[in-house]
Amino acid sequence: MADGVRADGRSIQRDSDPMIKAGIVGATGYTGIELLRILLRHPDVRITLATSEKFAGKKVAEVLPSLSGACDLSLENLSDSQVIKNCMVAFCCLPHKEAMTHIPTWIRKGTKVVDLSADFRFRSPAIYEEWYQKHAAPDLLPESVYGLPELHRDEIKKSTLIGNPGCYPTGALLGLIPLVREKAISLEDIIIDSKSGVTGAGRSPELESLYSEVNESVHAYKVGCHRHTPEIEQELSEVAGQKVTVTFTPHLVPMDRGILSTIYAKGLRKLDSKSLTRLFSEFYKKEPFVKVLPAGQFPKTKEVRGTNNCLIGVAVDPRSDRIVVVSAIDNLMKGAASQAVQNMNLMYGLDERLGLNQLPLVP
Amino acid sequence: MADGVRADGRSIQRDSDPMIKAGIVGATGYTGIELLRILLRHPDVRITLATSEKFAGKKVAEVLPSLSGACDLSLENLSDSQVIKNCMVAFCCLPHKEAMTHIPTWIRKGTKVVDLSADFRFRSPAIYEEWYQKHAAPDLLPESVYGLPELHRDEIKKSTLIGNPGCYPTGALLGLIPLVREKAISLEDIIIDSKSGVTGAGRSPELESLYSEVNESVHAYKVGCHRHTPEIEQELSEVAGQKVTVTFTPHLVPMDRGILSTIYAKGLRKLDSKSLTRLFSEFYKKEPFVKVLPAGQFPKTKEVRGTNNCLIGVAVDPRSDRIVVVSAIDNLMKGAASQAVQNMNLMYGLDERLGLNQLPLVP
Amino acid sequence: MADGVRADGRSIQRDSDPMIKAGIVGATGYTGIELLRILLRHPDVRITLATSEKFAGKKVAEVLPSLSGACDLSLENLSDSQVIKNCMVAFCCLPHKEAMTHIPTWIRKGTKVVDLSADFRFRSPAIYEEWYQKHAAPDLLPESVYGLPELHRDEIKKSTLIGNPGCYPTGALLGLIPLVREKAISLEDIIIDSKSGVTGAGRSPELESLYSEVNESVHAYKVGCHRHTPEIEQELSEVAGQKVTVTFTPHLVPMDRGILSTIYAKGLRKLDSKSLTRLFSEFYKKEPFVKVLPAGQFPKTKEVRGTNNCLIGVAVDPRSDRIVVVSAIDNLMKGAASQAVQNMNLMYGLDERLGLNQLPLVP
Amino acid sequence: MADGVRADGRSIQRDSDPMIKAGIVGATGYTGIELLRILLRHPDVRITLATSEKFAGKKVAEVLPSLSGACDLSLENLSDSQVIKNCMVAFCCLPHKEAMTHIPTWIRKGTKVVDLSADFRFRSPAIYEEWYQKHAAPDLLPESVYGLPELHRDEIKKSTLIGNPGCYPTGALLGLIPLVREKAISLEDIIIDSKSGVTGAGRSPELESLYSEVNESVHAYKVGCHRHTPEIEQELSEVAGQKVTVTFTPHLVPMDRGILSTIYAKGLRKLDSKSLTRLFSEFYKKEPFVKVLPAGQFPKTKEVRGTNNCLIGVAVDPRSDRIVVVSAIDNLMKGAASQAVQNMNLMYGLDERLGLNQLPLVP
Repeated sequence: MADGVRADGRSIQRDSDPMIKAGIVGATGYTGIELLRILLRHPDVRITLATSEKFAGKKVAEVLPSLSGACDLSLENLSDSQVIKNCMVAFCCLPHKEAMTHIPTWIRKGTKVVDLSADFRFRSPAIYEEWYQKHAAPDLLPESVYGLPELHRDEIKKSTLIGNPGCYPTGALLGLIPLVREKAISLEDIIIDSKSGVTGAGRSPELESLYSEVNESVHAYKVGCHRHTPEIEQELSEVAGQKVTVTFTPHLVPMDRGILSTIYAKGLRKLDSKSLTRLFSEFYKKEPFVKVLPAGQFPKTKEVRGTNNCLIGVAVDPRSDRIVVVSAIDNLMKGAASQAVQNMNLMYGLDERLGLNQLPLVP
Repeated sequence: MADGVRADGRSIQRDSDPMIKAGIVGATGYTGIELLRILLRHPDVRITLATSEKFAGKKVAEVLPSLSGACDLSLENLSDSQVIKNCMVAFCCLPHKEAMTHIPTWIRKGTKVVDLSADFRFRSPAIYEEWYQKHAAPDLLPESVYGLPELHRDEIKKSTLIGNPGCYPTGALLGLIPLVREKAISLEDIIIDSKSGVTGAGRSPELESLYSEVNESVHAYKVGCHRHTPEIEQELSEVAGQKVTVTFTPHLVPMDRGILSTIYAKGLRKLDSKSLTRLFSEFYKKEPFVKVLPAGQFPKTKEVRGTNNCLIGVAVDPRSDRIVVVSAIDNLMKGAASQAVQNMNLMYGLDERLGLNQLPLVP
Repeated sequence: MADGVRADGRSIQRDSDPMIKAGIVGATGYTGIELLRILLRHPDVRITLATSEKFAGKKVAEVLPSLSGACDLSLENLSDSQVIKNCMVAFCCLPHKEAMTHIPTWIRKGTKVVDLSADFRFRSPAIYEEWYQKHAAPDLLPESVYGLPELHRDEIKKSTLIGNPGCYPTGALLGLIPLVREKAISLEDIIIDSKSGVTGAGRSPELESLYSEVNESVHAYKVGCHRHTPEIEQELSEVAGQKVTVTFTPHLVPMDRGILSTIYAKGLRKLDSKSLTRLFSEFYKKEPFVKVLPAGQFPKTKEVRGTNNCLIGVAVDPRSDRIVVVSAIDNLMKGAASQAVQNMNLMYGLDERLGLNQLPLVP
Repeated sequence: MADGVRADGRSIQRDSDPMIKAGIVGATGYTGIELLRILLRHPDVRITLATSEKFAGKKVAEVLPSLSGACDLSLENLSDSQVIKNCMVAFCCLPHKEAMTHIPTWIRKGTKVVDLSADFRFRSPAIYEEWYQKHAAPDLLPESVYGLPELHRDEIKKSTLIGNPGCYPTGALLGLIPLVREKAISLEDIIIDSKSGVTGAGRSPELESLYSEVNESVHAYKVGCHRHTPEIEQELSEVAGQKVTVTFTPHLVPMDRGILSTIYAKGLRKLDSKSLTRLFSEFYKKEPFVKVLPAGQFPKTKEVRGTNNCLIGVAVDPRSDRIVVVSAIDNLMKGAASQAVQNMNLMYGLDERLGLNQLPLVP
């Protein structure tokens, strides 16, 4: 059905082949599944490859019954030559380290890449190597673009290799960039307290991700040492024009999706909740996916579920004069898959909203 | 944004006004919210009215921040004249009893109606009055059609008043109709054990629906006396050509959405899991929204979440020779809002899939 | 603290060593953790051994921070000689197949055993071997007792080897035994539809048990072929004095704990909900852990959470004359660990309620 | 059963009447239910009164089937004379404002009171009136003691009126007191980011507390204006000997119980994670209910569920030199009911652990 029906349910003619042939490398993890969901309904994309180490040889719909009747693809083992041959663009959902061993080959042969791992997010190999491991393709880093459209839209349009942002950095940066760019806060005192759903931990069977380990509980983890920290700092430092260090604490919350980031900062000038709301609204007024709530309102993660949206609420705590920004995204969407598609849209000169106008699934 | 952008994200011209002007009466309950989500993206519909007793006067996006930027409507008090004037079709999400006091007026003045309450589901006023209360418009019952397209597609196409099926009956009937129509089971021994998410209880603040009352627990309720029982029996009896009585037990499960119905029946002829799967596949092969899983596979409610799909798995228990059918639907979608839109599509001669090709939000 | 403080918080004298030295073999699975929780507060037990293949060498409180300050034990590798030397009674939480390779040695050397695997639940090696694998110690089966106190209290008291019942069978049997013993139902038409929390799947890292696989969803599994079926049938057949075959469908529900079993049967004599309630109340009036609710009330699994209780509600569906019994237990407690302690209490001639009077954690 | 059986399951003699006759005023809210659970198993308490406006006239076990067989009390309407006549001590679970209209009468007639509302937590009527409303009994405030035993144990022992701490303040204060008392942090920069389960919102039927409103979502609320703020500040200011202002942001997390507070502060002297852990361990070494985790470990709320425990993990973020403290409590227990019982134990000169040695229900 999917092949012959457009996103709006109308039939399309088979001979008008969609423009973009896209591959999903690692299609049965949570991010890959989400890319399938989006791209199967994208009006200008045809999925030409879906790989899975674990389920190679099986039909997508057999492994993912939610796609019964919507997807006729079979899952394949990863082969660089298949990617190069079949894909104009590849969405790489491999784990970091693995990603950078394949991507250079693809890029060299003309396949564009949106990499959802951390391997091409850093401008400095040294920082990458401090937090991850030795980089296998440092020469590609200058070519890659950090795929946050709200910050790097123009570069993304011209790029062939996108380092798609981490989920936490996406929410944190969208909440902080207006303040840093407007020089409204002290750069010494930024605290980011984030709460994430469990899909952020991926789909590998680990004790820590079992239902009864995380259900009915909340906890902080990797306090002061989470690998998304340098990513946040790289982008904020660039915006600020000086080195920024942040305190970042991620937490795990018993829900499937969503990241809520509560951000604390000290104002450098007199601001109240209303003027702060205005500052944010003004800053994001042309952004299709960032929505600033009225003063006094704060977002729920459910209100962005299944979408590329970021909802932001802001306040100045009148008693401590501290600025509080709360941003909500869907970690699998704006924090991963739909942001990757937004980047692809930009790379191909399309309306960046194409295929991304789902409304949140509430409740 | 919504107004000028189609379901696939492309712009549309404002002057080509969408054909169908639709109203949602009771737009801030769970079913109403879901109708907003669907109809705002339906290529041939423009929402012209959204009422809410509780929130009249407010913007939809203020009450439902998930629709920020996607909906510019204001909520209004219900007035029959507004419905008649502004709506070619009205989706009525009022509670039963209230529904039937308004709908006759709308119908008389030419507004088509899909009623999501129980008021127009029954052909016999006596049965309605036995389970509910006195019927205020029994004369309209012969005109109304029970809106299960898999059973009454042709009548729906010609109808102006649809009694949209209850959530439990939808899942139960789709699992039973093939067996009853094919005379494959004894009609004396049908047991339906259903498990529903909590949205099925509606959005009224009741102690029983509080988070900490239903979380981390499962229970049966209204054992032997749930009002969806006569609805199931009416349709099965019509298919069978004789009176059918069923045992139906609903359960509440700690999740937002989804109904899983596990159906037990005694076979009248020799069937095994494979031939039973064939029977179901054959029966539903032309249905766009009913998908039969391979023998040995059973559906999860999550696999239909946010869609109009019904997934069905079947087996014959080899030890007791009993037939087991498991059907999964999203109670707010195929069990309510998206089935209502499917019915509207049929009433207007459209492709019934229009606006309904969402893929399940998994996970 | 634990060592010197009794269950009621009062100090005890160290020299009055508790009577029973107990070992937990496999102490870091969900059942083992639960046994630690119970036995650390049992007035007549001292835990003398806790083994864990995965965490051997670590302190219990390091692996299970919930026991910080309450348990000074270290986890050890399993060694038969340690079990024999240190334990008057061993609670065996090894998986089936592994259990039966160790237990004969322990028994032969005088350590009593409550086995929480399936290995010693069956009287017939043939049935065990049909559903599991070759039995390694069939000669021990005649000595072992099926540890459902409500059915086999007297044999349990004299036994040295208990096959502790499966979680599903415990709930199903408690709901069916009164009906079968009183010859109130047809033995041909018993259907058990059970809904279990996720801890029932154990603590091994499996894809199927990941939070985001099971959250917000319900599904049936092992339809017609779950290994608890023959266990239910063995006990019912013995009560009935003839072979009983049941249809049993387990479901997975997104919650940590609890099993709700909805049981359907056909009555052989005229019964209504009130007389059926009386039958059950009378049957269980002396049982300390089985509580029958007033006619018209049905249990929630949360109402037994963390306890050894079984709550039962019954009804006769007046329309189909079918009997519906709903039983609720905590699968880790009455369905595993606390029932094991109840059995131990009986084996040692203690009040069977000792250490088991926790009240349900609601909400 | 409850009456004749002690916490450890042994029988007690009826004629040795427990010493303390206690009443629960407002017994069917979440805090009242929890008090029933604790006090029914407290070795030195007999519950002599349980009131409920909503359910007066019914048996406790009828309204709360989890207590079937464990509690023979009937619920009564609140009457001051009944409280005075039947209760040596009353646990007052009325909402604030209502509490202070009854409590003065009880106190005057010799009934001791542990008040779980906010009415007697403040030393300054002015602060109470700024955040709540006019105080009806300001003359009683000097007599009342803020019931955090770790801070006010000696005064509690001599008191007849306890203002039992709020849930958020309990977790926040236990994480901050050591730092403030040791003058280890700047008092200008304290940020408390708390995450609470839904029972914190109480048991009144409100839209915001419905299952499907809060499930699968996390959000901040009352940013900069939550009424627990002045309570935290009052106690910290007293410890510091100077006015302390904090930034406090509460969040709602989809789980029944638990509060995790992530606290950020700036150190005034050189500390690393190890020395900070030592500081906390030393500070709390004699406290029976506060447990400090090894450096590098952080608590999960599930690890204290159903107990009076507070688990604390601490770290110094090496990159920003900021101190991070994470504390976990059960909001219904240490955050309400069990802390109330701890206070009662102290008021009566009992071992404060009496009736409170439950181990956490994990998972």
